[in-house]
Amino acid sequence: MKATFVAEATDGSARAGVVHTARGQFATPCFMPVGTRGAVKHLSSADLEALDAQVVLANTYHLMLRPGADVVEKLGGLHRFADWDGHTLTDSGGYQIFSLEPKVDDEGALFKSTYDGSRHKLTPESAAEIQAQIGADIQMVLDVCPPLPSPRGVIETAVERTAAWAERGRAAFLAGPTVDRQHQFGIVQGGTDVDLRRRSAERTTAVDFDGYAIGGLSVGEDRSDTGPALAAVTELLPADQPRYFMGLGDPVGIVEAVARGVDMFDCVLPTRLARHGTMLTSTGRMNLTRAEFATSTDPIDPGTPDSPVARWSRGYLRHLLQVKEPTAPRLLTLHNLHWLFGFVADVRASIVAGQFDAFRQHVHGVWDA
Amino acid sequence: MKATFVAEATDGSARAGVVHTARGQFATPCFMPVGTRGAVKHLSSADLEALDAQVVLANTYHLMLRPGADVVEKLGGLHRFADWDGHTLTDSGGYQIFSLEPKVDDEGALFKSTYDGSRHKLTPESAAEIQAQIGADIQMVLDVCPPLPSPRGVIETAVERTAAWAERGRAAFLAGPTVDRQHQFGIVQGGTDVDLRRRSAERTTAVDFDGYAIGGLSVGEDRSDTGPALAAVTELLPADQPRYFMGLGDPVGIVEAVARGVDMFDCVLPTRLARHGTMLTSTGRMNLTRAEFATSTDPIDPGTPDSPVARWSRGYLRHLLQVKEPTAPRLLTLHNLHWLFGFVADVRASIVAGQFDAFRQHVHGVWDA
Repeated sequence: MKATFVAEATDGSARAGVVHTARGQFATPCFMPVGTRGAVKHLSSADLEALDAQVVLANTYHLMLRPGADVVEKLGGLHRFADWDGHTLTDSGGYQIFSLEPKVDDEGALFKSTYDGSRHKLTPESAAEIQAQIGADIQMVLDVCPPLPSPRGVIETAVERTAAWAERGRAAFLAGPTVDRQHQFGIVQGGTDVDLRRRSAERTTAVDFDGYAIGGLSVGEDRSDTGPALAAVTELLPADQPRYFMGLGDPVGIVEAVARGVDMFDCVLPTRLARHGTMLTSTGRMNLTRAEFATSTDPIDPGTPDSPVARWSRGYLRHLLQVKEPTAPRLLTLHNLHWLFGFVADVRASIVAGQFDAFRQHVHGVWDA
Repeated sequence: MKATFVAEATDGSARAGVVHTARGQFATPCFMPVGTRGAVKHLSSADLEALDAQVVLANTYHLMLRPGADVVEKLGGLHRFADWDGHTLTDSGGYQIFSLEPKVDDEGALFKSTYDGSRHKLTPESAAEIQAQIGADIQMVLDVCPPLPSPRGVIETAVERTAAWAERGRAAFLAGPTVDRQHQFGIVQGGTDVDLRRRSAERTTAVDFDGYAIGGLSVGEDRSDTGPALAAVTELLPADQPRYFMGLGDPVGIVEAVARGVDMFDCVLPTRLARHGTMLTSTGRMNLTRAEFATSTDPIDPGTPDSPVARWSRGYLRHLLQVKEPTAPRLLTLHNLHWLFGFVADVRASIVAGQFDAFRQHVHGVWDA
């Protein structure tokens, strides 16, 4: 097993650490914005540099169809493609494909392109190969993501198939050309069932990946159900490898997952909320479309004076949003990402200071309202 | 008459100069991008600063309806509103209104809002008042813009009404609160008829504005018709005040108008072209959507190495455009504006160097193809 994570401080199960990759390192807890088609919506790599983003996601499903993994490879791989020297991570494509009602068998998943209806098959082997072509620093193994909630039998089948695919995906990755410059993470499934989560964690860690993700816990689930399943997983994961909660990015969700030993997060929500005028602020969510902000000369969040949009008033930004000027989603995206990066930096600082529990309570106080 | 323009160099009728305002000064020839609703599409004032934009337009018609001139005023006026310390100019609203088939009489123009169908009236007096509220450095008098081509009688009536409105609009401006901090420009109409253009120029200059615009020459006209009408106007305009050709922004059009003594230009075309993937380059127009660029690692324009998007490949930018990522129109807009600002700087340099005719021929060689 390759040690890829060093904890610099812990507070209970919460960890402040560093993930080591072939490219270098990044600090955790870490929030990773989603650059679906090779760009975070409305932003460029220059913006991500200015925001001090550490890791940016890209979606294998989208890039394999447009422009094609071969085209990304010809253009120098994902980093050169987007001219981004920070870290990158690609999902396996599975999550999008399973939302398209694919035909799944033991071999893989057959699906139709949303772009042109053409038929494609993704297998554990081809997912590893395509992600090697795209060339992110971290690739994800192909897993089975059943819709949630599903009957226990469906979840159990998904856990078994995920485990079988993990072995095949890992073997393909290890035999591939990028083993020295990419990490590959396994994915633990199992719904909210603690026993199935444990079984999936054991089966997945037995394959020996470079890090582990928790899949299928963030979508359509009552959060009160997820804590035990999450804790059951993280206590079985190796301490010296990173843990990644897929699809989670709200402040309370992040502190609750960090409390159970998770290091990495991604979510489209902070950027999607921004595009619709919902701002993350030091006093909680703020709906910028409210009429009261029409003539406000205050900045979006007086508690975040270093926001990249602090120079513009709520009134101006609300106006741009209301008349659908594309400048608005861009500026509001910059704010939400800046805010969230600052938030996870605060989570990290609270762990280093041994004050994580107090910070966690503070977060609940602001965001549970 | 207030001297508001100083020619630093001339070459034939072409002028390289400086426009003086209450805010400061800007160099000419000058291209002014259009920030319709208080922002150039996809850009912020931070971007315009990075591009070294000198003057940005805003549309009175749009701002008076959304968010309302009173709201812009409450938020500190156009500069504070957009947090833009460069120069600004507002059109009168007439151009948009006349495209909506308004009811026009001697008093003003009655029109329906495109936002909610509500009815509004714009008069020469209210146009001056509303633009004073918005607070740009330069406001434009309300003129009559007949559709082109129109019968001579329609153009003649427009010239007469434009002259009458000019007197009323000027009187309202001079009696208003912003006479010390805004300029007001008159507008010459007259279609492509040299005699009507002369008459309009004489009637408009008799009112004594701070600068003069040429309206109604850029839309739907065969360019070969426009040279004589334009030259007839500029030779009647005061030498120590700026001349602004409304709605023109292509390289050949700019050098031809500069050759006839014009100083200022605005146009939505460079930014609109960008959003559709048509790039302005040192070798002419380039359609980025062409399949040949899919795997090109070259920058958009190797001849413009200081383009703000030079770090990204044609292949990457084309991909973002093809999959409709909003990052694409933003980056391509940055390129086209950077290119056009560089172009007018070259026009200026050629005048200062006494090489304008050679540069003008070079421009035709690149762009007439």
